[in-house]
This record gives sequence, structure tokens and C-alpha cells, in this order.
Amino acid sequence: MKIYDVEGFPNPARVRIALAEKGATEKVEFIPVDVMGGEHRSDAFRAKNPDAVVPCLELEDGSCISQCNAITEYIDGHFDGASLTGETPRERAQISMMNLRAENGLLNAVGAYFHHATPGLGPDIETDQCAEWGLRQKETADKTMVYLDGVLAENAYLAGDRFSIADITAFAGLAFADFASIDIPEHLTHLTGWRAKVAARPSIAA
Amino acid sequence: MKIYDVEGFPNPARVRIALAEKGATEKVEFIPVDVMGGEHRSDAFRAKNPDAVVPCLELEDGSCISQCNAITEYIDGHFDGASLTGETPRERAQISMMNLRAENGLLNAVGAYFHHATPGLGPDIETDQCAEWGLRQKETADKTMVYLDGVLAENAYLAGDRFSIADITAFAGLAFADFASIDIPEHLTHLTGWRAKVAARPSIAA
Repeated sequence: MKIYDVEGFPNPARVRIALAEKGATEKVEFIPVDVMGGEHRSDAFRAKNPDAVVPCLELEDGSCISQCNAITEYIDGHFDGASLTGETPRERAQISMMNLRAENGLLNAVGAYFHHATPGLGPDIETDQCAEWGLRQKETADKTMVYLDGVLAENAYLAGDRFSIADITAFAGLAFADFASIDIPEHLTHLTGWRAKVAARPSIAA
Repeated sequence: MKIYDVEGFPNPARVRIALAEKGATEKVEFIPVDVMGGEHRSDAFRAKNPDAVVPCLELEDGSCISQCNAITEYIDGHFDGASLTGETPRERAQISMMNLRAENGLLNAVGAYFHHATPGLGPDIETDQCAEWGLRQKETADKTMVYLDGVLAENAYLAGDRFSIADITAFAGLAFADFASIDIPEHLTHLTGWRAKVAARPSIAA
């Protein structure tokens, strides 16, 4: 199994944390993609992933899975270890809902701000900017942080009392917010406390 | 179990088709939400769904699941009948990937065009338009139709040889495209042939 990605980027980080949570990091070969050089938009890479983004999972038979949530779904089902996506229909739905709120409202919103309303990865890569949209998405990210803080005032983790992919997504979203110079307000103490707790997990701290 | 929605809207349609595929339509109470009157943005509705959109699923204990993919995940796991989300990790990941491509690239792209670059649901509802973004998302929808046509040139359904939530999402996306006056090019014969086949399913034709 191969993962095409860039170490340190937000969406690749989600997959790497999921692999570490399952104790499966050593079972995967990581292939670096030169995103800054535009390799993810080459015909060769698009043949693996028409979405032209990292990460992309390649299975032993050469077939590829892209989209972070789909890759994480595969990792969670394929490897042993505590479930990251839930076991009962109700738990799966709750985790999926919170994961999508963290993804759309925080990680993707921060990403839209970074890629559309800042220099982002530079003019060679950011060829399709829409600043107005990016600025609005920053507002969405700000509101989502407040929402997540409220959820964490009442729950140990975003989808209840156990760690899940929703926490991984939100954690990567906050890391991206740091990188994009979006402040995480200090008064959101439930969010910052949860963040410190998640950062101390072996899958992240190690 | 209750579903808060508006009949005929694209995302509610996805949930209704999924319920019909599972033979579970009669097991759910549908509660209409006055979206045109802004009810989805009321405090009472936000208490059920902070995302302030339809559909929203309410379980017997009063807890709510929103986000279409999470609702569909619950429906698929809770009710009997052929799986819509897949059974093996590989099948689940493949379906999830194609569902997300259909959602982001088609349904949500058409939605962004409709709500941002056309009068949409009217000035009382469309209070946050960004026309430039909407027009770009129409280009994304156009490209996704071409991509999906290519997938359907080689597969009976979007995620392989069985019907799945990816097909439901793309079908709703094309219905939304019709409503938003986005043409589906006639030369995309694999896409239009698949559409006719899906439209004839009892879950949709009935």
C-alpha cells in the first residue's frame, strides 16, 4: 500500500494520524509528491487521482482511492485497532456528521482562505484565486471554532466520549489555521484544552 | 424517526431516495420546513441543526443527525436491504470516494452556482452571494459531468457494478443542474444513459 502525499500538509496529516492511531504507519510506503512544482497536476498523477490533490492511496493492485474521508474509511476498516469511524449506525452517523462539520466549517474553510485570500502556495500554484470567497470562508472558520468550543464544553471529544476521525480533522484544521495566521481565540478554552489533549496522543506527539 | 426537509429540494431528495431504496419511507415521519420563509435559520431549527440547512434526521430520543452523508450512513446501517454504502473496506472507500466526487464536483458545485450566481431562492434567502465563486463552480460542474461520463463509459454505476449512494448524489446533482438551467451536454451519452437507468428505479420512478 502506498500513500502519495506531502509531509506536513493538512490533508496528508489527517491520513498519517489515522495510520498512526491504527498502528499501521510502518505498513505503508509514502511517496512524496512535488506539489510546489505542480506534480499533482501532471497527467501521470491525474491518472491516479483525477482530483489532482494529495493524499492518494494506491492499493496493491494499482487501484487508487482519493478523498481523505474515503482513504480514512479504508484505513479504519482494513487495519486492526480502535475504530475511528464508529461501530453502530448511530455512532457512525454522529462521527460522520461531526467530521463533516469540522471539515467543511474549519479545515476546508481555512484552506479556502489560505488558497484564495492570501498568497497561499505562491503564484505558480494559486492560479484560480477568488479573494472574496476566501475572506468569507475565514468568517466560517471563525464561527466554526466557536461552535466546536461549545461542543467540547459538553463532550470529551467532538463526537462524544471517544476519539474519532472528527477529532483528527478538526486538529488538522487548527494546525492549518496556525499556518494561515488565523488566530484561535484564547477564550475558547474548551477548544484549546481539547487541542492540547489531542496533541499529546502518541499518534501525534511521537 | 423524523426527517425535517422540503420535498423536491436536492439534498432532501438524496435522503428520500435512500429511504425508498431501503424500503423504509413509511417508517419515517416527514416534517416540512419553510425554507422560503427562513424557518431553517430560526433558533428553534438551529437547536436541532446548527448547520441551518435541510434535511435533518431526528431520532426517537430527540438527538439529531444532519449532513446528508451522515444521515444516509445512518439509514443504510439501520434499515435492512441492499447496502448503499458498501460492505468491505475497499468497497466502502470506493463508494465514499465517488460519492464525494459527485457531491463536491457536481451537486455542491451546481448549488454554489445557483445560490451565488443566479437569483437562487430570492433576495430574502440569498443574503450572502459571491457571484465570481458561483460562476467558477459552474465550470467545476461542467468538468465533473465530463468526468462522470468517462467513469460510466467503463462501469454500470459510479462506484462499479452496483448502485450506491454515489449514484444517488450524482442523480440529485443532475436534477439540480436542470433546475439551475445548466445544460447536460447531449454528447455525454454514458451519463445520460445512466441517468435514464437510475430514473427508472422504483425508488425514484414510483
